[in-house]
Parts: sequence; C-alpha cells; structure tokens
Amino acid sequence: MAYIFSNILGVFVFNDDLHLIDKSLFKSNSGGKSKGSIEISLKNRHKGLKEPKEKELKEILAYFRKKEFFPDFYKNNIDMTREIIRSSVADDLLILQAVGSIEDLDKAINILMKRLREWYGLWNPEFSRMMESSEKFVQLILIKGKEELMKEIHVRKEESMGAELKREDIEAMKSLASHINGMYNLRKGHEAYLESVMKNFCPNLAAVAGVLTGAKLIQEAGSLKKLSIMPSSTVQILGAEKALFRHMKTGAKPPKYGILYSHSLIQRQSRGNQGRAARALADKISIAARVDYFKGQFIGDKLRKEVEDKFSKE
Amino acid sequence: MAYIFSNILGVFVFNDDLHLIDKSLFKSNSGGKSKGSIEISLKNRHKGLKEPKEKELKEILAYFRKKEFFPDFYKNNIDMTREIIRSSVADDLLILQAVGSIEDLDKAINILMKRLREWYGLWNPEFSRMMESSEKFVQLILIKGKEELMKEIHVRKEESMGAELKREDIEAMKSLASHINGMYNLRKGHEAYLESVMKNFCPNLAAVAGVLTGAKLIQEAGSLKKLSIMPSSTVQILGAEKALFRHMKTGAKPPKYGILYSHSLIQRQSRGNQGRAARALADKISIAARVDYFKGQFIGDKLRKEVEDKFSKE
Repeated sequence: MAYIFSNILGVFVFNDDLHLIDKSLFKSNSGGKSKGSIEISLKNRHKGLKEPKEKELKEILAYFRKKEFFPDFYKNNIDMTREIIRSSVADDLLILQAVGSIEDLDKAINILMKRLREWYGLWNPEFSRMMESSEKFVQLILIKGKEELMKEIHVRKEESMGAELKREDIEAMKSLASHINGMYNLRKGHEAYLESVMKNFCPNLAAVAGVLTGAKLIQEAGSLKKLSIMPSSTVQILGAEKALFRHMKTGAKPPKYGILYSHSLIQRQSRGNQGRAARALADKISIAARVDYFKGQFIGDKLRKEVEDKFSKE
Repeated sequence: MAYIFSNILGVFVFNDDLHLIDKSLFKSNSGGKSKGSIEISLKNRHKGLKEPKEKELKEILAYFRKKEFFPDFYKNNIDMTREIIRSSVADDLLILQAVGSIEDLDKAINILMKRLREWYGLWNPEFSRMMESSEKFVQLILIKGKEELMKEIHVRKEESMGAELKREDIEAMKSLASHINGMYNLRKGHEAYLESVMKNFCPNLAAVAGVLTGAKLIQEAGSLKKLSIMPSSTVQILGAEKALFRHMKTGAKPPKYGILYSHSLIQRQSRGNQGRAARALADKISIAARVDYFKGQFIGDKLRKEVEDKFSKE
C-alpha cells in the first residue's frame, strides 16, 4: 500500500509509513504540464497507489515543510506564474489593443485636423470652412492648388479673405496635412487587421455585430468571455452606462442602446423602431458571442439574416 | 470758396451752396489707398479748397444719406474690411500656428505612445517598461528584433513574460510605431520652420529667449505687439497665471517664472538663483521684443551675452 502525491515540484510516492520511496520532478519551465503522464508512469511502476486521506496528507504536507524545498518551491512558483501570464495573452487582448488604437488614432486625428483647418484657414479660409469632410479636405489640399480649390467652391480670387503666404509657409502646413492623410491610411490598415483577428477569433460576433461594433462590445465588456455571459439586455445598453445611471437616479427615460446605436440595422430604423431593433439585435449578438466563446460553428450569417429580415419587412 | 470731403466712396468737392461740383471715386478693391493722391489732384484743380466745418458737414452728410449711395457704401465697406482682414495675417499668426502645431503633435504623440507601449508590451513587456525615452523606444523596435532588444536589457528569453505573437499581430503594432516615428520627424520639421519664421520676424526675441520659448511667449501674450508692451515683470511670469492667482487669493508664494522656466539659463541656475535669473532674463526679453516690434537692429546676441555673463560668473 502506497500513496501518490503531487505538488508544483513534481509527483511523489510515499510508502505505508509515509516515507518517500519514489519521485519524479517536473522539468524547469515546464509549468507542471507533464503532471498527467508522470502520474500514469508512477502508477504503473507502483501498483495500487492511492490518494492520501486527511490523516496521511497531514504528514506528507509536514514533510514538504522542510527548509530544503523552499528554493525549489519559490522557483517553480515563479515559473508557473510566468507561464500563465504568457499564455493569457489571448486574441481578446489583441482585439482590445487594435480597437483602442483605432480610437486613439481618431483622437489624434481630431486634434491635428483642428490645427490644420485653423492654419490652412489663414491662406484659404473659404475652402477650410466649406469642405466638411476632414478626410476629403486633407486629400484635396494635398493634390490641388489654392486657385483650383477656390474654383470648386465658386469663390473668386478677389472675394477671398485669405492672405498671400510664402512657399515655405504653405509647405509647413502641407507637411501636416500629408501626415494626417497617413493617419487615415493607418486607421484603415488597423481596421483591416482588426477584421482579420475578429473573423478568426469570434466570427459569429463579427458577422452579427460588424467588426468595429463587435470589437467595441468586447472592449466595453472587458473580454469575449465576459460578453458571452452577459444577459442580452445588458449587451443592448453596453456603453450607455451614463444614461442608465441617470435613469436609475432621476427616473429619466432608460437608454435604448449604447454601442449598438452605430450598427447599420439600428441606423436604418425609424425612431420608434430603434429600441425594438436594438433589443432583437442584442439577442442575436448574445447568441453569437456565446457560440464564439465555446468555439461553436459559424452561424453568424444565419443570425444576422434573421434579425435583418424581421426589421426590413415593416 | 469750396469744400473737400472724402468718405469710403471717394473724394468729393462741394461749392459754397453745398452743391456737388466735382468728385473722384475710388476704384473697387483699392480699399481707398489712392485717397491721398486723389485729394492732391482735386486740390490742384480747385484752388482754395477747405475742410467743411460743423455747419457744412451736417449738410454734406445729409447729401450722402440718399438711397442711391447705399449699394456703393455697402460694397466698398465689404471690400475694405476684406482688405484689412487679408493683410492682418501677420507673421505673428504663422508663429502661433506653428508653435500650436508642435504642441498638438506632442499631445497626439503622447496618446499614441501610451497605446503603443501597452500593445507592444503584450509581446515584449520587459523592454516596453525599461526603455524610458519614447523616441528611442520607437526607433529601436522598428529596427531591431525582439531577441536583440531583450539581450540589450539583459533579459533571457525564458524569463520574459511576453507572449508569442503572429507575424500579422507584430506588423500591426509596428505600423503604429513607424507612424509615431514620422510624427517625431514632422515635429522636428515644424521646429525648423518655426526657427526660420522667428529669425525673420523677431530675431532679437529668438536670440535671447530661444526659438520655442520665444514662440510660446508670443503665443501666451497673443501677439508680438502685446508682448512688446508688457512690463517685464509680466513677461517673467507669463504662463504661470494659475500660480499667480493662487498667490493673490491664498497668499501662497508668488511664481518666479512661467514659460521661462524651460529656458536653458534658468535650468542651469541653482534653486536660489533661478528667480533672480528669470527677472534678468525677462528684462532682456522685453527689450528684445520691443526692438523686434519696432523693426530695430539686431542686438539679440549682445542682450543674451549680457545676461549669460551675469549669471555664469557666480
């Protein structure tokens, strides 16, 4: 009769008098992954090995309390923790970083666009004011001259309030414009990257919610796991926490949607229908997130079609 | 006996009975620039022209109140205003935009750097934490591989907490890094541009205060004109308004310097000397700004040397 016992150092066999009679230590940096196979081989070597009961366990644990084991316990503990952290970098985290980067790029673009419009406005104020789309504004001032742009918005040269600037002055603002243009391109690159990670990691969520909205839902929830265990009513108003607390505190109307507001399905609905559509969409998104978390099959297109059909007939 | 009278339409001559007998209208878009020469030629044509006194002025003004003049008054008024605005784009404004752009780039770089360090930290956390200089960090991760960087900070591969990532994941974060690197370069380009504008527009200020500090002083004051009419005690604490008001409200210590704090002369002083140095420096900066505003000669190097000498001997 003998007992088998394993801890983070390895697997140990004690005899009936609770003296150590055999052991097999884990290799360093293995993080105890070989535990299963080691146990099997020891059980083959010593027939009839049992798990220690309370009485035996007490003595075995006292055995490992010897000072000589301390350095190994310390070292293996560190190794295992490191291994856990290393492997905890799931695709979740990459999605969070990519969507965070897109948001940060938007912030940076906003700051620099404001500056560019003001700066460029000294030279060609009419165009700076009239061209609303920032991306187009940047592209146009890079490829077209001032007079060409003024013609496009039907402003004659004599009417312009813009100052004459030196070539050097114009080059300085154009270098800023060219840089902002690069940021728009980088943003597109990151969107494409996000799409590829999402389609790999959570294809169903990506199909139902869309890439960017899906990623923002994961971001707001904290991880795909957290999103998948949320009730769909929470998914529906994710990102509208401020409105929710205002509702609870002051009795104002509860929010109908948070992040989902930017989803194309919600955008297409009439105002009266948006709340219902958001509820139905959140249902499907919840299902999609769960299927993704448990690595189920791809049913995203089916889910999306169901909710699309329901809200296009009316 | 006849009277000469000019307004924004042109120059007019009225006879003794206050009937119009001659006129010369301004050309459109001339902004009334020809007023002087027109007056002279009319005075040559009609000898003994006088400025109208109060009594005649009343009737002349009544004459121009006729409806037929309204469209011309309106049009010339717009033209003149446009001309004034157009020519008000002084080098001041370009300096404000350039220094504003540098500050905005700093803000944008900060946002994106924070993101990059977090993102890159999933892969190579030890390096992300240990390399303090952001500019160096960006450059190094662009040109060197992970293992090379880890060797540099003496971290063995097995010790690293970083996850293994796919090529695609690494490319995405590197594209962000490469973009931030471009922003550092753009910032340098704008600094060079600012230097050239400053050396042209306010060489004395640039020499005494330095390019960036001088530009920030103009920015804080609003324009070179405003900076030049400020007492030097105000220049000394420009940019420390918050501390100044705290001093006035709570009796806390008054600020010794604002923007000037970053000036190399102040940085070099011992703590006890910084206040005195800031006062002396502000004096010279005030002089420099005034000389620049009135387009005086270049005495910037002399001014700078005076204050440098005074505070290097001790």
